[in-house]
Amino acid sequence: MEPRQVNIGILGFGVVGGGLYRLLLKNGEEIERRTRARIRVAKVADVEWQRERPTYPPAEIRTTDALAVIQDPRIDIVVETIGGVGVALDLVRAALAAGKSVVTSNKEMIAKHGAELFDLAAASGVDLFFEGAVGGAIPIIRALKESLEASHLDLVLGIVNGTTNYILTRMMEEGRPFEEVLAEAQRLGYAEADPTADVDGLDARNKLAILCAIAFGLRASVESIHTEGIRSITPTDIQYAQQMGYVIKLLALGRRHDGRVELRVHPALVPRNHPLASVRGSFNAVFVHGDGCGDVMLYGRGAGDLPTGAAVAGDVIEAARNIINNCRGRVLCTCMADADVLPNEEVVTSTYLRLRVADRPGVLGKIATAFGEAGVSLASVIQLDTDHHTAEIVMVTHACPEGHLDTALASIEALDVVKALASRIRVMEQPAD
Amino acid sequence: MEPRQVNIGILGFGVVGGGLYRLLLKNGEEIERRTRARIRVAKVADVEWQRERPTYPPAEIRTTDALAVIQDPRIDIVVETIGGVGVALDLVRAALAAGKSVVTSNKEMIAKHGAELFDLAAASGVDLFFEGAVGGAIPIIRALKESLEASHLDLVLGIVNGTTNYILTRMMEEGRPFEEVLAEAQRLGYAEADPTADVDGLDARNKLAILCAIAFGLRASVESIHTEGIRSITPTDIQYAQQMGYVIKLLALGRRHDGRVELRVHPALVPRNHPLASVRGSFNAVFVHGDGCGDVMLYGRGAGDLPTGAAVAGDVIEAARNIINNCRGRVLCTCMADADVLPNEEVVTSTYLRLRVADRPGVLGKIATAFGEAGVSLASVIQLDTDHHTAEIVMVTHACPEGHLDTALASIEALDVVKALASRIRVMEQPAD
Repeated sequence: MEPRQVNIGILGFGVVGGGLYRLLLKNGEEIERRTRARIRVAKVADVEWQRERPTYPPAEIRTTDALAVIQDPRIDIVVETIGGVGVALDLVRAALAAGKSVVTSNKEMIAKHGAELFDLAAASGVDLFFEGAVGGAIPIIRALKESLEASHLDLVLGIVNGTTNYILTRMMEEGRPFEEVLAEAQRLGYAEADPTADVDGLDARNKLAILCAIAFGLRASVESIHTEGIRSITPTDIQYAQQMGYVIKLLALGRRHDGRVELRVHPALVPRNHPLASVRGSFNAVFVHGDGCGDVMLYGRGAGDLPTGAAVAGDVIEAARNIINNCRGRVLCTCMADADVLPNEEVVTSTYLRLRVADRPGVLGKIATAFGEAGVSLASVIQLDTDHHTAEIVMVTHACPEGHLDTALASIEALDVVKALASRIRVMEQPAD
Repeated sequence: MEPRQVNIGILGFGVVGGGLYRLLLKNGEEIERRTRARIRVAKVADVEWQRERPTYPPAEIRTTDALAVIQDPRIDIVVETIGGVGVALDLVRAALAAGKSVVTSNKEMIAKHGAELFDLAAASGVDLFFEGAVGGAIPIIRALKESLEASHLDLVLGIVNGTTNYILTRMMEEGRPFEEVLAEAQRLGYAEADPTADVDGLDARNKLAILCAIAFGLRASVESIHTEGIRSITPTDIQYAQQMGYVIKLLALGRRHDGRVELRVHPALVPRNHPLASVRGSFNAVFVHGDGCGDVMLYGRGAGDLPTGAAVAGDVIEAARNIINNCRGRVLCTCMADADVLPNEEVVTSTYLRLRVADRPGVLGKIATAFGEAGVSLASVIQLDTDHHTAEIVMVTHACPEGHLDTALASIEALDVVKALASRIRVMEQPAD
């Protein structure tokens, strides 16, 4: 079979667009030998070309007119690496409507507008791929949409934000507080000047909505996902967790129950022998469980020019293969229904609690009684004196509905001997052996 | 789009064939909703139907005539789960020649006859899929053939044999010797009555040949792969390794150099903070590195009826999708050349050594001199007395060509003060941070 040329247009020449471009340039020959597709970057659009970049496309393929790229009849595949849901969304809509296959790494756009865009792609009979939207280089999207499809998946558990995992890893390994490590991460380029999307869990929430759609076939609005970030995590809690055999990670969790689904993003105590516990620094991982496949985990670089560029390039190759083989649209949207999200009070989980209490006889008794009355049983209790007047009680509950715990904590916080509920962090169960 | 029926014939109704059948039965509706393919098991062939099985296909689809299944014009996909390279190979040849897409979990057949079979598949314009051949449920084959294709991969590092990983994990966690743990593994069904293929590394070798072909595009004969098993691993070495921050794993390693490739299966000391170090029990994992993707690892159940059945079922779905979309053969054989395998003496590695020596002054000096003369430098040395006459020296070398180490050890073993080279185990470098 003769190699066939496939032309792509790249919209947005930032970190990911640049990584994609360099990779296609470097490995183009090897890709052609493996796939018989000669992938040529025909046009690159960006709003400005003055900024310094590690690589620069030749002048004759640079443009500032993204719409002209979409409308160029020679272009088969449009790659969107602009990000956000403003102009990127309009351009992707236009590209799909114009009958181009689209590859994007835009998690926010897929999380919030995936349904509409997949309908558009299906109507035009083209592909819409987004491997780069979750977990950078980790091939989790294709694994879920194709390889693991024979299994009924009931659990998706991800460390999907590299910035927060980097911060938590440094906090744990160096015993330093959140603000200090965040400031350092910002200096080193691991965290943005405005870190909100990362440290408050919003980025992970977008990715969880996508994982829920492809693993469970259920569409969930990002607003329906209970979301907590890592700002409140302290070195003290990390140290207690370590003593009990856990590490603290920001998890994106989806669990399928009969007809309903649990969706939440929050820090959690992860048992040290869980495969997710060894995911350090800016690495990401997604752990899934299904009736056939059992436990499966995919691990890799969650962000960066080349890792995300590699995921996007993999999608470009796949889209090119489908063009060559005349089978665009062979993998459909996997969503079959809207997610019926379990209310938080019905979520069953074990929880780590740290209370500051008056250092007086009988305090633990009062607290334990309040737990018992709300139907919450305790798996472990440690009491430590902090000074003459205050003691710290660290407890882990057995799994119970969060609503029961809310009730227990409301009465406990009302006790005059209780000074503060310092921490409340969910605990993951042990993995299968 | 209306669902389309795709008929499959299963050859061999053992562990994997049975797992596949049960999974398709259980999840058939969900698969149909996601893919629009109604996958129907039209025939199941096995040499005998008397044996007790967890599930039994209805009498009207059971047969003992495998050739009739292949020749049945209604059957679109033939699944081979017989194993070995005898009758299985003849049947797969016949199925491909008859224009059927073939799905197999037969690692030995793909490792030894993949080239011929892929040529046959290409000539017939059909698919030949083998996700179940390496790493059970782990979607490593599709990840390498499709998702990671944009990266030039230079390293594949796998824990691909569950039996040996189970044995090494138990030896480490319980401090017990190999023979005892093997006997227990055999009782529990984790090891075969004849454990040779597993414990001597032959199974891992077949899988490494496959990984080399798909990750590097290079065909290697299994005979060209340097292979050592785990019979010589002792609790003593495991304990020393732990003290130095390592765990011992049976690794299948492929590393691409300029034009040549390093291929070897052997036990190795893996740094405790390497993602592979936390792969416990019968789990498998494959770690790869590429210029674009960086470090990527896939982890999961390496064997068993449902995990391997799920991988095979995933391939069946993919083959069905290609039939429905009229694009069989869209993913080609990725082999481009024969592997030029690096001779073992040129392989550069760090090595752990344990020597039993006479407990006399000057011994360490003689040994260190012999290393120096052969150009081998030492990273660490521990000397311990074992009794009045013998001392044990545990050393880790810096990375050097194995040929240099061979020379050094030849002169060291000839020293009258050296009683025995008790252990020689390769050491993996630290992972990237």
